[in-house]
Amino acid sequence: MNIRPLGDRVVIKRLEAEEKTKGGIILTGNAKEKPQEAEIVAVGPGTSEVKMEVKIGDKVLFSKYAGTEVKLDGEEYTILKQEDILAVVE
Amino acid sequence: MNIRPLGDRVVIKRLEAEEKTKGGIILTGNAKEKPQEAEIVAVGPGTSEVKMEVKIGDKVLFSKYAGTEVKLDGEEYTILKQEDILAVVE
Amino acid sequence: MNIRPLGDRVVIKRLEAEEKTKGGIILTGNAKEKPQEAEIVAVGPGTSEVKMEVKIGDKVLFSKYAGTEVKLDGEEYTILKQEDILAVVE
Amino acid sequence: MNIRPLGDRVVIKRLEAEEKTKGGIILTGNAKEKPQEAEIVAVGPGTSEVKMEVKIGDKVLFSKYAGTEVKLDGEEYTILKQEDILAVVE
Amino acid sequence: MNIRPLGDRVVIKRLEAEEKTKGGIILTGNAKEKPQEAEIVAVGPGTSEVKMEVKIGDKVLFSKYAGTEVKLDGEEYTILKQEDILAVVE
Amino acid sequence: MNIRPLGDRVVIKRLEAEEKTKGGIILTGNAKEKPQEAEIVAVGPGTSEVKMEVKIGDKVLFSKYAGTEVKLDGEEYTILKQEDILAVVE
Amino acid sequence: MNIRPLGDRVVIKRLEAEEKTKGGIILTGNAKEKPQEAEIVAVGPGTSEVKMEVKIGDKVLFSKYAGTEVKLDGEEYTILKQEDILAVVE
Repeated sequence: MNIRPLGDRVVIKRLEAEEKTKGGIILTGNAKEKPQEAEIVAVGPGTSEVKMEVKIGDKVLFSKYAGTEVKLDGEEYTILKQEDILAVVE
Repeated sequence: MNIRPLGDRVVIKRLEAEEKTKGGIILTGNAKEKPQEAEIVAVGPGTSEVKMEVKIGDKVLFSKYAGTEVKLDGEEYTILKQEDILAVVE
Repeated sequence: MNIRPLGDRVVIKRLEAEEKTKGGIILTGNAKEKPQEAEIVAVGPGTSEVKMEVKIGDKVLFSKYAGTEVKLDGEEYTILKQEDILAVVE
Repeated sequence: MNIRPLGDRVVIKRLEAEEKTKGGIILTGNAKEKPQEAEIVAVGPGTSEVKMEVKIGDKVLFSKYAGTEVKLDGEEYTILKQEDILAVVE
Repeated sequence: MNIRPLGDRVVIKRLEAEEKTKGGIILTGNAKEKPQEAEIVAVGPGTSEVKMEVKIGDKVLFSKYAGTEVKLDGEEYTILKQEDILAVVE
Repeated sequence: MNIRPLGDRVVIKRLEAEEKTKGGIILTGNAKEKPQEAEIVAVGPGTSEVKMEVKIGDKVLFSKYAGTEVKLDGEEYTILKQEDILAVVE
Repeated sequence: MNIRPLGDRVVIKRLEAEEKTKGGIILTGNAKEKPQEAEIVAVGPGTSEVKMEVKIGDKVLFSKYAGTEVKLDGEEYTILKQEDILAVVE
């Protein structure tokens, strides 16, 4: 099964705290917004106003409360808009 | 009888929990938004700003509380805007 | 007497519950919005942003609380914007 | 004395309930908005976004609470934007 | 001393109730907005979206509560945006 | 040390009440907004939508509560957007 | 490890009060907004509407409460949009 997000949406898989990246990133956040690390698993085509800047496999930081969670073939994913992604961790 | 949605609207038929897809998709949701699975049954022409990305027969995930329900020839449908569709499940 | 709506407005005549269409459409609605069936009796010229997609005689579904009611030559009509029309029933 | 409205504004003279048109129009309204009949007495030049669709002498339906009332040479007028005019009654 | 308003702003001098125009204009207002008469004393260059439609010396009607009052060389003026001017009285 | 404001921002130095201009400008204000006099000390490059209309050295009237105050080399300045400047006093 | 911000975002490192610049900048702020000094460490590509005006190494003033804090390889950073940067201190 395959998910194709619409417009400027992407599908991400959250990385657990245990699955830290090699660089040892640890995320803190202020009261307003708690960023989390995730991996991009699907990318929408973009819109006339939004060009997609991420690709499948990118590690990204995103706002914890953004998007909608779905369970697919037993795995949990989040569908969110690209504007809710803060940065790519390379 | 036929429904032709206006602008960037689509008409969908919700898939019951019992009508799971072969892949065994199970949807969970956070407090803000509970996505559901549906099938596209009619697609509007789009607008000058919104190009339609779905077609009749597509299986989609959409926000549970989006749109308006109508009963047509004994069947229930939902009319909603394409922007309320999160992704196509292929 | 004739009514010419401005911009992207249309004038509709609501179809009573008794005046069901042949297909036997029955409308239900969620708490947020109760759609109703009506017939288009006049169509504005549109605007630079909105192209009119309906024509006189079209049977349409629209949001019950949209628009403004007027009585004209003893008949009740509703003036509303095209964006408040959900779909054409053909 | 002459009033020249700016932008997409028009100046109208409300028609009293006693001054019904020949067609015998009687206006009702829902709780949200009560339309009234008036005659256009001056029309602004429009804006880059709004093209004027009414002309002096047009009988129009407008939202009762829209615009600003002024008294000019002993007569009361209302200055409002064209978007607050619902329709021309021809 | 000279005031040059920025963008689509104008500087006006309010006309006192005693300084009625020849035509004998008397302004009334509804609860929402009380228009007043004034004379244009300075006009900004406009913006890419707003073309100036008034010139120095124009008698105008404007919304009483719009803009900011300043005292200059002992005289009181109001700086406001052109969109807060309802009409030119010619 | 030099401050270069971004976009359509400017840096101003407020003129104290004691530093009145020759013309003897005295500013009054209504309850909503109290304008103050200041001198422009730095001008941003503008944006695709906003062209800068002020230059270094201009005496301006601005809304008292607009912008952010900073202390630089012992002097206090205010950084604000050009749209918060009402007029240039020439 | 490297952070690549998306769109019109930048990554900054806050300068501690102890790390004052040579010019001896001391920042004060009104109740609404307290600016702080920081150094740019990464710059997004911009968007179709926002052209980036800062570069890596720039010292900037930004609104204290803007953006999201992240810890990367033991160092704290803030990701924010360029519009939340007030000025470059040169």
